[in-house]
Parts: sequence; C-alpha cells; structure tokens
Amino acid sequence: MKDFTVDNLTAEVVRAYTANTQSPRLRAIFSALITHLHGFVRDVELTEAEWFEAIGFLTATGQKCDDKRQEFILLSDTLGVSMLVDAINHPKGGAGTESTVLGPFHVGGAPAMPFGGDLRRRHLEEAEPCLVTGRVVDSTGQPIAGATLDVWQTSANGLYDVQDAHAPAWNLRGTFTSAADGAYALVTEKPVSYEVPTDGPVGRLLAAAGRHAYRPAHLHFIVSAPGCETLVTHIFVAGDPYLDSDAVFATKATLIGDFKASQDAELGERFGLPTPFCHLEFDFGLMPS
Amino acid sequence: MKDFTVDNLTAEVVRAYTANTQSPRLRAIFSALITHLHGFVRDVELTEAEWFEAIGFLTATGQKCDDKRQEFILLSDTLGVSMLVDAINHPKGGAGTESTVLGPFHVGGAPAMPFGGDLRRRHLEEAEPCLVTGRVVDSTGQPIAGATLDVWQTSANGLYDVQDAHAPAWNLRGTFTSAADGAYALVTEKPVSYEVPTDGPVGRLLAAAGRHAYRPAHLHFIVSAPGCETLVTHIFVAGDPYLDSDAVFATKATLIGDFKASQDAELGERFGLPTPFCHLEFDFGLMPS
Repeated sequence: MKDFTVDNLTAEVVRAYTANTQSPRLRAIFSALITHLHGFVRDVELTEAEWFEAIGFLTATGQKCDDKRQEFILLSDTLGVSMLVDAINHPKGGAGTESTVLGPFHVGGAPAMPFGGDLRRRHLEEAEPCLVTGRVVDSTGQPIAGATLDVWQTSANGLYDVQDAHAPAWNLRGTFTSAADGAYALVTEKPVSYEVPTDGPVGRLLAAAGRHAYRPAHLHFIVSAPGCETLVTHIFVAGDPYLDSDAVFATKATLIGDFKASQDAELGERFGLPTPFCHLEFDFGLMPS
Repeated sequence: MKDFTVDNLTAEVVRAYTANTQSPRLRAIFSALITHLHGFVRDVELTEAEWFEAIGFLTATGQKCDDKRQEFILLSDTLGVSMLVDAINHPKGGAGTESTVLGPFHVGGAPAMPFGGDLRRRHLEEAEPCLVTGRVVDSTGQPIAGATLDVWQTSANGLYDVQDAHAPAWNLRGTFTSAADGAYALVTEKPVSYEVPTDGPVGRLLAAAGRHAYRPAHLHFIVSAPGCETLVTHIFVAGDPYLDSDAVFATKATLIGDFKASQDAELGERFGLPTPFCHLEFDFGLMPS
C-alpha cells in the first residue's frame, strides 16, 4: 500500500495523473501543474490556516461570477497571468498591431454600427466626445476591406454598461466594418482611467498587497478578418497617470494613442461634433493566420 | 511607462505584490505564488483556449460549492495538495498517531454521544455492524481523560449523510468523550470504499486523467484534548482494494486498522451486538501542543 510523506507525494501524484492520460499535451499540463502547485506549497510551507483561507478565497471568487461578472478572469488579470498568456501566444515583433488582454467585460453580440456610428446611448455631462478614425491593414500595409472591429469601453463614470444599472443596454459597445479602403470611424466618449471592481475577492487581494485598482484609460478592440489572426487589444490614452501601474499589467508602448484636440471643423461637422473635438487616429495591422 | 513582454512581466508582477506588503509572510506567499503560477504558464506555453478552459473549470468548481459540498477542497484533495499541506504541518515521527486529510465532508456540531453510543440512525440491510474501541493517550502513553473524538463516515451505500437525501440528519456522525482511563467506545457500520463525488468539475478532471474516484474504506476522526495538538486522521480498513490508489493520496501505513470478526460474546452483548461481530481496536496518541 502507499505510505505518503513529504518526500514521495508529489512524484506519486504526477504518476497518478499521467499514467493513464493518452494526450501528450494533457500529460505535460498535468505534470507541470502538479509540480508547480506542490512547489508553491513546499516553498512557503503553507500552514493549514493559510490553506483554508485559500480554499475560501477561491470558492468566493467562483461564487462572485455570474453572466455579467467574471471574477476569475479578473483574478488572472490582476496576477499578470492573462497578460503572460497573451505575451506567450502573441510575441512581440512583426508588422501587426500588438495584442493585450481581453479583460472580463467583453460581451458578444454587440450591435452592428455604420461607418462613423455613435456608441453613446446616453450623454453624461462629464463625458468628452471623441472621434476615432483609422484603417485596418494587412502585414504588407494593404487595406483590409470588410474587417470587423468589436469596440467597448467604460463610460466617463468609470463603469462598463454591464456594471451600471443606469446605463442603457449596449452603451459604448458596437461592431464596425472596415470600408473598401480599410477605413473605419466611430464616435464615442474619450476613455477615462477607472478602478477594476473591488467589491469581491480580487478587491481584497489588491488591498492586502497595497495595490491600487486603477487601469489607465483605454478603448478595447477585437479586430478580425478572414485569413487573418484575430487581434485582441487596447488603445491607451497617452499621458494617463496609471500607464506605469496598470492593475492588470496590460500596457505596451506601441498601444499608446494620441487623443488630440482637433480644430478640423470640416471633419467634426462630418461626424456631428462641434470644434474643437478630441480625435484619435489609430491604424490596426493584422497578421496572416 | 511599462512595456510588458514575456521577459519582464513576472518580475514586475512580483514587485507590484511585494513593494507595499508589510507582512514578510504575505510577501513570501505572493512571491512564491506568482513565480510558480507564471512558471506553470511558461513551462507549458499555455494557449488562450487552455487558459479559457481553466477559467471555466475554476469558476464551475466555485459554483459547485454550497453549505454541504466543498468542490475546492475536493480539488485540493484529488491533486494531492491537501495531503501535502498535512504532511508539511504534521511530519512523520514522534509518539503520536499520524494525521491525514480532513476531507470535504466534515460537519461541525455533531451530537454528543455516551460511551458506546451507536452512530447508526437507520439500519441499511447491507451495512455490517461494527464496534470500535480504544484509548486516547499522551506522548508518554498515559491515558487522557476528557478527550473529544469527533467521528464521521460514509454509510454502506457509499454516501455521507449530507450527500444522501434519504439519510437521517447526523447519520454516522457523533462526538465522544474519553473516560477516566482514556477509553472510548462506539458502535457504527463497518466502513466501505466509496467514490468521491464525480458529478462536478473534479469528476471531469479525474475522468480526463483516467483515474478512478475511489477512496479506500475509512473512519474519520478529529481527536482533541486541552494541551494537545488536535489530531485529524482516518483509520483505514486493512485489505481494502483501494489502499494502493486512494483518489486523494491520504493513506499511511500506521493508520491501517484491523477490523476483526470477534467471537467475544460478552463484549458484543455489552454493546448490543450479536456474535460474531466486527471489532476494531485502535488507540490514539496525541502530542503536546
């Protein structure tokens, strides 16, 4: 019979999870998972009280999730795991736009909008109107027509629509299609920096580490087109005070956008904006899949 | 601003969680947790689809928990983590009885029972009656009077009362107090081997690894007394076919009990059992706290 001790346990657990596992990939995952999980427990000599606290933390994290809140993604984000997965799967380099984390607030099925469509389904006094224009191009710089741009962001009050009982459905969410010359355009609010939700287990974790919960202001994009690798990314607002301490470690230098005050009255008029107005120009480069 | 890559991310996440953390213990835990978590992701080059599967698995594990089911403890148990925590905190050696995992089915506040009390609150035809007797002693072998023994086990159908809609409340659960000479006695069912719950995420994990879900038959005990370290342990049934492949890696050679067929009619009569009857004798040794 098996007589388990600190010395023989980990090898036996790895054996139990790999002996009958057919998939080499799954065997590799089980082996690394068990080795690192046990390695953590050994390295810190986890006490029973700490183990029990961890069980309670993980349970509460799962129970905080519902159809509008994903606390485990938030945990992964705030521990840098989401960004690490992104960095491994989309290494730096090449002609394409860099990716960053999806975040927990994407909602599938956002309404399709026309070229230049306005994402604002209400008007908050503190919100600054913003025009976003640019092109979607391939790795050789040629325009991609018919690319889909799925866009979402927080409102000027720092909340995504799904967090805000007063927000109209789909506020500041929409999908756009690039034109024949690859161009896209949309009207929205200038993004603001905001706190990730702190009323759950992740908020307690951040507080325990003395970390603030702010993310630098950004617009979310998922840009996709046939034959191209789907791009999940943000555009950050240059000059944001939290660019150096993003709660979810998602900042990249190439993803900083210059949100300028534009005096171009003709352009503003075309999109229904009084001059001067905030204007971001940003081109997305997609890589072949 | 921070520009994160595979190469600089982990160090920055560790820095963010340790820079403002006052407690050295918490700093050590954050640092080891992040290092091993990121190490796992790096070692296997986790794909985005696998990450998403992991998020879904952890979320479902949390959501499977309620006041009678603790799927995260079951996950910890089946990954050998609970047993590792136990082994680290209660190393082998010394005069005391060895410990093993608590398991997810302990319920606090079980009814106090007299010496020789019967834990069976129903009588299943397939259940074999069993007398359990022994003493609680200290590290020098002297009897401990007034020790508390909190006992629980599955029924002959392989279910704990809290898993079984047909079981009376507190079936096969109770607390006993050792007598002046350290003795305790109780009547119960002979334990049977049983499957851990397989209708949740942990069941899917075991199936993916081709592992069976059986635990070798055992009685759970928490034995406590003033001035002593509380003992959380099992007594396993000698000869059980799963002693070599416990789903939760909790077996120890010194915790095997000899459940004998007794011909001692006088003893049987004293506890209301017809001869022959199943009899386990097991002494518990507690260490000073």
